Amino acid sequence: MPLTPYAKKVMKRCEKLAQFSQHPDYIDRRYLTKEHKNANLQVAKWMQQAGMRTWQDEAGNQWGSYRSSSPNAKSLIIGSHLDTVPDSGKYDGILGVLLPISLVQYFHDHKQSLPFHLDIVAFADEEGTRFGTTLLGSRAVAGTWQEKWGCLRDSDDINLSSAMREFGLDINKIHAAARSVDDTMGFLEIHIEQGPVLESRGLPVGVVDGIAGAKRFEISVVGHAGHAGTVPMELRQDALAGSAQMIVMIEKAAKEHGVVATVGQIHSSSNAVNVINGNVVFSLDVRSLDNQKRDRCIDEIMNAIEHIAGYRGLDAKIRMTHDADATHCDKMLMDELRIACENSGIEPFNLSSGAGHDAMAIADLCPVAMLFVRCAKGISHHPSEAVTFEDVLNAMLVARSFIELKARTCEHELVA
Amino acid sequence: MPLTPYAKKVMKRCEKLAQFSQHPDYIDRRYLTKEHKNANLQVAKWMQQAGMRTWQDEAGNQWGSYRSSSPNAKSLIIGSHLDTVPDSGKYDGILGVLLPISLVQYFHDHKQSLPFHLDIVAFADEEGTRFGTTLLGSRAVAGTWQEKWGCLRDSDDINLSSAMREFGLDINKIHAAARSVDDTMGFLEIHIEQGPVLESRGLPVGVVDGIAGAKRFEISVVGHAGHAGTVPMELRQDALAGSAQMIVMIEKAAKEHGVVATVGQIHSSSNAVNVINGNVVFSLDVRSLDNQKRDRCIDEIMNAIEHIAGYRGLDAKIRMTHDADATHCDKMLMDELRIACENSGIEPFNLSSGAGHDAMAIADLCPVAMLFVRCAKGISHHPSEAVTFEDVLNAMLVARSFIELKARTCEHELVA
Repeated sequence: MPLTPYAKKVMKRCEKLAQFSQHPDYIDRRYLTKEHKNANLQVAKWMQQAGMRTWQDEAGNQWGSYRSSSPNAKSLIIGSHLDTVPDSGKYDGILGVLLPISLVQYFHDHKQSLPFHLDIVAFADEEGTRFGTTLLGSRAVAGTWQEKWGCLRDSDDINLSSAMREFGLDINKIHAAARSVDDTMGFLEIHIEQGPVLESRGLPVGVVDGIAGAKRFEISVVGHAGHAGTVPMELRQDALAGSAQMIVMIEKAAKEHGVVATVGQIHSSSNAVNVINGNVVFSLDVRSLDNQKRDRCIDEIMNAIEHIAGYRGLDAKIRMTHDADATHCDKMLMDELRIACENSGIEPFNLSSGAGHDAMAIADLCPVAMLFVRCAKGISHHPSEAVTFEDVLNAMLVARSFIELKARTCEHELVA
Repeated sequence: MPLTPYAKKVMKRCEKLAQFSQHPDYIDRRYLTKEHKNANLQVAKWMQQAGMRTWQDEAGNQWGSYRSSSPNAKSLIIGSHLDTVPDSGKYDGILGVLLPISLVQYFHDHKQSLPFHLDIVAFADEEGTRFGTTLLGSRAVAGTWQEKWGCLRDSDDINLSSAMREFGLDINKIHAAARSVDDTMGFLEIHIEQGPVLESRGLPVGVVDGIAGAKRFEISVVGHAGHAGTVPMELRQDALAGSAQMIVMIEKAAKEHGVVATVGQIHSSSNAVNVINGNVVFSLDVRSLDNQKRDRCIDEIMNAIEHIAGYRGLDAKIRMTHDADATHCDKMLMDELRIACENSGIEPFNLSSGAGHDAMAIADLCPVAMLFVRCAKGISHHPSEAVTFEDVLNAMLVARSFIELKARTCEHELVA
């Protein structure tokens, strides 16, 4: 039975949803805005058309449930987020909501019933762009919402509680958004890869084995400012030359340890062509699916920074700014996704996620899995973010096969 | 005969002149301002007290001449500049004007006549802070003033011609500021070192052998932006990691070639912890007293930048932004300064100037020499710029000895 028209619908709806933006020139859809509300209403309409019962939960997440007729049925949750960063693309998060809705439409059109409830969730805040804290929607669902978040403020100094009230939500009832552990079978998130691995392998989709844990640091290197013409090379304490050596070393250490490490920000005190830098501050982000491997690499980097600073007469101060452990995907769900790939004529391929996802939060609730979809040049968080129709169709084939596989397993269990 | 009270006067007058500032909180004295005029008037008064005939030339430079009674006497010019950068110190330039005035006061007090005119000059603009072009005062004196400079504009959009008129000068008469080659014996500039060499050698003064020629470049490195978590190390085209490697290489090349090279400015496109840099721009300043040595080093750097960019999949664009050849000090004047050091009980020591000075411009008029005075920690262009009374006294002893030596040589020549 062909999924082609359903995949076409996904592409069309991604375009449609891109119009819900708080900025006239680019896509920008943040938590608890008018556009968030309108996007939820639109998505709820599509869910209803697909035969789903819909509701918005107390955190502003939009739900649709394709109900099972089985007694005591549990829920398989599939979803991702609808919020975006400013000037974003049309697929990050959104694809993971619209693709399963269209798939449910297919089940609905073909009167295909399931032995579990298939719940589609559109998380309200993953990017954290408005209040500076990520995964607010999925954390509410996982039951890990933190009281203090009510006091988070946006750039207009509006706090989260007030924004919720304005939106029509009551922060005091936020705990009702939490799903029950007992009623939940598992969670699948379909998401664009946001990296170049699938493209470089020529694969439309990949099975995620885990989400890397990140540690972040701010490294401040203090040397001695001086005149570019008057201080001989051997008498310099050049904070930028020292930092450059550290950055080269960081790259080497990451490669050797098989982790990723990035220096994204760099600020130098001198803004003059003819002044030796006395002070440089740079950021460091190190990630791996293997926390120990990551920490071994970080240890080596920290020692090398000390060493380089030492013999150059520099002072290096290191401050940790972020620390999150890795999330591992569920082995059984992963195996089922691999079989679903094979069933769809796609070579099963595992890869890790370096970026954070709602699945990280939901892992506190139930077993999680992720299916990555190839995106052009690995670009995300940018208007040029792109996926092809063919890859969306392939992801849909894999998702359908995965659900049917789960359905058969579930029915066997019910019989046994 | 003790110079001590005269050196004390220099220290006191440096403090006094620091009060002529266009900013209430720090020293800032720019070309053609009220403070420039008042500083000239103050300096002229001190010159007159020392028995000098004074005048302000058509470029706003202040002159004082200690006249010789000899028929057909030429002029030995000693001086430096009175303008400052914003938030400057009290000695850069100023010391080289106030020290010789005090020395002339000594000659005057001791009724010591000279076989040449001793002309003290206070150049009006060396730093170029107001109009963006340096050495305006000394270039007018050297006869190398450029017509187009009349159109230079300051940050308030006032052009140089108007500023001159406002100050009481006529730009059409600027060529009258040029001194005659035939009447000029040579030029000596006394200046703080602005570097740490004398301090590291434990010497109060040093004889400058030349002023380095500088070439400057802007290097723009373009790679590919990406997500810090999702792009594997081997698939990255990280413009910052590539730039860091180039900066480390630049430092190494400079050391190997015996030149100084500085990366002062660096700007990265990413301002996020979790984004791989797609674009980095940095500056490069390379200096040497030996133009060929400098250019060989630059060739090596440029080749290495190409090589690093090539194998990292980066695009490096290099643009030259400044090109000035080295200025060599006059061998005979240098020898005389070295003898003057020995006569003053100071080990004669040669060093190069990496910074630009008025002597560079005056080298087009006559033989030039420079005497550097030790400054604390090599700091200049900063309120913490400092010289000791003892070092000023030593510089004064050397200058006196140098002038007396020149006087004896001159008298011998006159007799012969």
